[in-house]
Amino acid sequence: MIKAGIIGSTGYTGQELVRLLLGHSEVSIEWYGSKSYIDTEYYQVYKNMFKIVDDICCDDNMEALADSVDVIFTATPQGLCASLMSREILNKVKVIDLSADFRMKDVNVYEQWYGITHQSPELIKEAVYGLCELNREAIKNSRLIANPGCYTTCSILSIYPLLKEGLIDAKSIIVDAKSGTSGAGRGAKTANLFCEVNENIKAYSVASHRHTPEIEEQLTLAAGVDVLINFTPHLVPMNRGILVTAYANLNPGVTEGMVKAAYEGCYRDEPFIRLLDQASTPETRWVKGSNYVDIGFKIDNRTNRIIIMGALDNLVKGAAGQAVQNMNLIFGFEETKGLRQVPLFP
Amino acid sequence: MIKAGIIGSTGYTGQELVRLLLGHSEVSIEWYGSKSYIDTEYYQVYKNMFKIVDDICCDDNMEALADSVDVIFTATPQGLCASLMSREILNKVKVIDLSADFRMKDVNVYEQWYGITHQSPELIKEAVYGLCELNREAIKNSRLIANPGCYTTCSILSIYPLLKEGLIDAKSIIVDAKSGTSGAGRGAKTANLFCEVNENIKAYSVASHRHTPEIEEQLTLAAGVDVLINFTPHLVPMNRGILVTAYANLNPGVTEGMVKAAYEGCYRDEPFIRLLDQASTPETRWVKGSNYVDIGFKIDNRTNRIIIMGALDNLVKGAAGQAVQNMNLIFGFEETKGLRQVPLFP
Amino acid sequence: MIKAGIIGSTGYTGQELVRLLLGHSEVSIEWYGSKSYIDTEYYQVYKNMFKIVDDICCDDNMEALADSVDVIFTATPQGLCASLMSREILNKVKVIDLSADFRMKDVNVYEQWYGITHQSPELIKEAVYGLCELNREAIKNSRLIANPGCYTTCSILSIYPLLKEGLIDAKSIIVDAKSGTSGAGRGAKTANLFCEVNENIKAYSVASHRHTPEIEEQLTLAAGVDVLINFTPHLVPMNRGILVTAYANLNPGVTEGMVKAAYEGCYRDEPFIRLLDQASTPETRWVKGSNYVDIGFKIDNRTNRIIIMGALDNLVKGAAGQAVQNMNLIFGFEETKGLRQVPLFP
Amino acid sequence: MIKAGIIGSTGYTGQELVRLLLGHSEVSIEWYGSKSYIDTEYYQVYKNMFKIVDDICCDDNMEALADSVDVIFTATPQGLCASLMSREILNKVKVIDLSADFRMKDVNVYEQWYGITHQSPELIKEAVYGLCELNREAIKNSRLIANPGCYTTCSILSIYPLLKEGLIDAKSIIVDAKSGTSGAGRGAKTANLFCEVNENIKAYSVASHRHTPEIEEQLTLAAGVDVLINFTPHLVPMNRGILVTAYANLNPGVTEGMVKAAYEGCYRDEPFIRLLDQASTPETRWVKGSNYVDIGFKIDNRTNRIIIMGALDNLVKGAAGQAVQNMNLIFGFEETKGLRQVPLFP
Repeated sequence: MIKAGIIGSTGYTGQELVRLLLGHSEVSIEWYGSKSYIDTEYYQVYKNMFKIVDDICCDDNMEALADSVDVIFTATPQGLCASLMSREILNKVKVIDLSADFRMKDVNVYEQWYGITHQSPELIKEAVYGLCELNREAIKNSRLIANPGCYTTCSILSIYPLLKEGLIDAKSIIVDAKSGTSGAGRGAKTANLFCEVNENIKAYSVASHRHTPEIEEQLTLAAGVDVLINFTPHLVPMNRGILVTAYANLNPGVTEGMVKAAYEGCYRDEPFIRLLDQASTPETRWVKGSNYVDIGFKIDNRTNRIIIMGALDNLVKGAAGQAVQNMNLIFGFEETKGLRQVPLFP
Repeated sequence: MIKAGIIGSTGYTGQELVRLLLGHSEVSIEWYGSKSYIDTEYYQVYKNMFKIVDDICCDDNMEALADSVDVIFTATPQGLCASLMSREILNKVKVIDLSADFRMKDVNVYEQWYGITHQSPELIKEAVYGLCELNREAIKNSRLIANPGCYTTCSILSIYPLLKEGLIDAKSIIVDAKSGTSGAGRGAKTANLFCEVNENIKAYSVASHRHTPEIEEQLTLAAGVDVLINFTPHLVPMNRGILVTAYANLNPGVTEGMVKAAYEGCYRDEPFIRLLDQASTPETRWVKGSNYVDIGFKIDNRTNRIIIMGALDNLVKGAAGQAVQNMNLIFGFEETKGLRQVPLFP
Repeated sequence: MIKAGIIGSTGYTGQELVRLLLGHSEVSIEWYGSKSYIDTEYYQVYKNMFKIVDDICCDDNMEALADSVDVIFTATPQGLCASLMSREILNKVKVIDLSADFRMKDVNVYEQWYGITHQSPELIKEAVYGLCELNREAIKNSRLIANPGCYTTCSILSIYPLLKEGLIDAKSIIVDAKSGTSGAGRGAKTANLFCEVNENIKAYSVASHRHTPEIEEQLTLAAGVDVLINFTPHLVPMNRGILVTAYANLNPGVTEGMVKAAYEGCYRDEPFIRLLDQASTPETRWVKGSNYVDIGFKIDNRTNRIIIMGALDNLVKGAAGQAVQNMNLIFGFEETKGLRQVPLFP
Repeated sequence: MIKAGIIGSTGYTGQELVRLLLGHSEVSIEWYGSKSYIDTEYYQVYKNMFKIVDDICCDDNMEALADSVDVIFTATPQGLCASLMSREILNKVKVIDLSADFRMKDVNVYEQWYGITHQSPELIKEAVYGLCELNREAIKNSRLIANPGCYTTCSILSIYPLLKEGLIDAKSIIVDAKSGTSGAGRGAKTANLFCEVNENIKAYSVASHRHTPEIEEQLTLAAGVDVLINFTPHLVPMNRGILVTAYANLNPGVTEGMVKAAYEGCYRDEPFIRLLDQASTPETRWVKGSNYVDIGFKIDNRTNRIIIMGALDNLVKGAAGQAVQNMNLIFGFEETKGLRQVPLFP
């Protein structure tokens, strides 16, 4: 039984982490951090937790926390985790950062896309990018995990096998992504009001979304080829879910069988990746509330392009579920522990 | 470890039962019954179950099933369970019927409201109405459970303590109920298409809904006074959830403290009932995916009426979750086993 | 051709008023008032108006406006209109106030329910309650209209004929109302975010909603009997629409035919009231975007109660449409001018 | 004043046509055709039409209709219009076909993608593709209009100016489209039930949707270069709206100014096309219920691609509104007559 603290437990991601950890038999949550709700009962912020969580929200205090728990999750705005992090803390506790602070290996790219000066660049090298299916062994031995973004997880897992096997043109990739509204957070903004989101679909951050360089860097590292993509996120009137529709030019001679073999080679034994047959396409409803990623593809012989589709729950595999999966790897628990939820439908 | 069979596993209720039983450590599902999908893989009908359930859907065969499992769940249209049921079957197996066939003690009322001739009226007396909070001991010793309806569960649990303690006028009760659309089932009807339900609210079956006599009979039995109600269901553009708003005239001299005491007297130790404080009102989002019922009330001193509110997930506590709770009681498992899900929000 | 100014044109109600007035051949909008968006193009606030409205938002200036337009609409927070209003202004211009400031004839009731000191109580007596179907003649001759609330319009129109004809017990009325989320306004509040409203239904302001005394006062005035009601509003995950489900005890001897006759007597010639036959119940989808009110009823012989249902679009007949209807009456235009929109479905 | 008949008036498109024609001062609807609802009052099928339309639904009878009206709209399944059409009919009446029967100039492509033998191929040449912005003059003189598909209208109008001016690589175009659910029609299918569509997004008909060759053929004809595209439609949980996000490689030397000039050159004077500035992106909510198409773009200098976005209401500009626009052109009415609705928001 290990002890966990959460800094930023009252955002949607933090709350989902609470939900998952409450169902994990090897962890107890010792610290419900929340700058906005200090001294408030957690269940007053999320009334689904009534009669389940009795704790009071605490201020963020990384130092105190490092002395009292085994693992800290940070589900906080960009820049905060980096500003609080140090080797001293990492000597005492494992840290799983759900923000973007340690995701980019190139600190210049981080500072340029996020417009923030990185407060602990010396730790970037040590941080492991916590995409379990790609970096499993490194994760097991790490102290600082950069938990991937939601769009990023879905995009990379969907595309990676094809790049790794050299089946597509790395310069031709276009990622058209669609997200549920929980990805926009719980901040009170007019643009996210019910009447503004409902009965609408829009693209946003076109050609400028911060997950773009994260997808590019990780695909480049994983596949060993320079990757440059177009990435366009869209806001969908639903609570949860990300669907990625990606397009790429097939390299000469590539067949459907080769594509299938590439996916199976990478993911055959992965507990959370479900490769769909050719008659199915991923849909966000089939993964809701679970840690699964559903992946499918179609080849268009007319254009010689492949259409790759991936679906996951942005709050689970796209954030809190993946953080738990990382925790499981680090502490030697069964990788799927606490993550066996059957997707909730409808 | 017991064995379970489900007749009618491909409706929304059947699927929810599958989801819950998959997370129950003492049960294995041996039979996925479905007249409409015989010989089809279950995961083809519900793709959330891909890589989780490998079984094939089977025809309904109560006899064969009775010989091979410990408990049969019937999530079937009205009349089917009664037509297949017999003492012989009950000698072999426990049956939990999620249809309405054995809910009404007065067979005439059943036949009148449902327009069906009851095929096994001799078993009605033996059947136990499976509302666990009211009939716990009888359930433990029963072979045939009439699992309550969704509106009914919410209405009865919300109102019962006030009748039992004689705090309200039994003839003054009005139940205005609101349901998510999964309550309408998975049948292909124009009225339940997305574009017909979305951006709309309507009442339906006004003064004629079949849950009316069920609520009346059970409240009458439980509280020992004749109860006659108005019941009006409404269809809400959401997937899951029932909210009941009930109105009743307070008897002379009744105070807020007496109302609170009535609820606490009945439900203080109930694991699945959450009594809200006066600052809160039940909302369906806080119970989604869980077996909880949230109950709250307000007294209107101007009119001397009480407004009682209850919320539950129609597919869980209103159907499949309650069926599992009944199974737990019958087989001597911990009552909450497999039902500890934290509500999924958002 | 008359000139109109709108104070508070950038709320949902203000925008709906703009939409309707743009389609009205006898009015031009001269003033788009908005404290929050001074000097911003109106179409930047509501991009549906791009290439339709070129105007810039102006500060609120009732004095200046009174000199330059024929009619002022105020769609502003409670208290503002009363604080700016005077006999001098009313000598120059007609005012249609969409806030609650002049709705209550009893200033004490206003001040108690709204917690505001009324700034121009001397004008209350002059103000006409702008429910066209009930007060048509008085409206035609008025200078100051108190435009009714959305819940209020739907409740009063649905219940009034039965009280007027003495068919129901005035002390037995219960109004259970359901509203789309545009009724909550465009303010940036966490409670109104998409993820908080979607997949949820809740009651709010139980036994304390400010429309309660408005409904009571108007029904009392119109029907000549003291009316005291229970009123419970609910928030529904949809953009537009109000559905009222009201319950009342029928007086002895009242028949369905008498109820029908009461409705037809009051509304037979009303252009915006549609009395449904017994096979139908009102649904908000059938009135969306239009000025119609659909009204239906069912009698429950078991309980001797009547269930009355009414549906309207909260932004049209519940606010901006009714304001235009009032304007038409005051200026002698055809009452339906600019209000003949066919409801938009789906 | 002309007379119109509608064959297929009870689908979503047919109903929208009724809504629009009711607001058109130069047309009266003489014939509400509907095979499924013969002898039923139209308002029983669409209760928004209660007290607005008194007519009864009639059987399809093209011959009879041709003798009694000036224009026939066919909003029917593929193949029906072609099977009923003849030169004789066209000698008597104008026909605007909202199905796909006369859209493809190459009958082989039609027969291959639709799997139907064309019943009147001799009329294909005469039929004019009714995309008003591109074919205005030809439409004015035609007797048979092939009214474009919803995805098609949005895709072609968004992309056409760039191809016409030679700014993009015609072989690089990828169209990722998202549609509201009314596009799926009113047929009772499980896949379109509320609970199946709500809280979900999916791609469908990947690499095989029938609008693909229509887009290709029309862009090829209009721009004079061979166009081959990828087209992927998605189903969005909302009633109305299409959003197209298209990607293309910019030709060498193309600047933002050149792109802007291309759009303005084509659409500067178009009443229904709104070119957004660079700070905005099209959203379906801003065009709902109207005949507008909103178009915007962003250039990604990193990849040298352009992202083109277009939004329209699939039932208006994507179907019934465009049909009315075609009718206006044919009969010499003002092109915008009956189509000046301000978009309905929220």
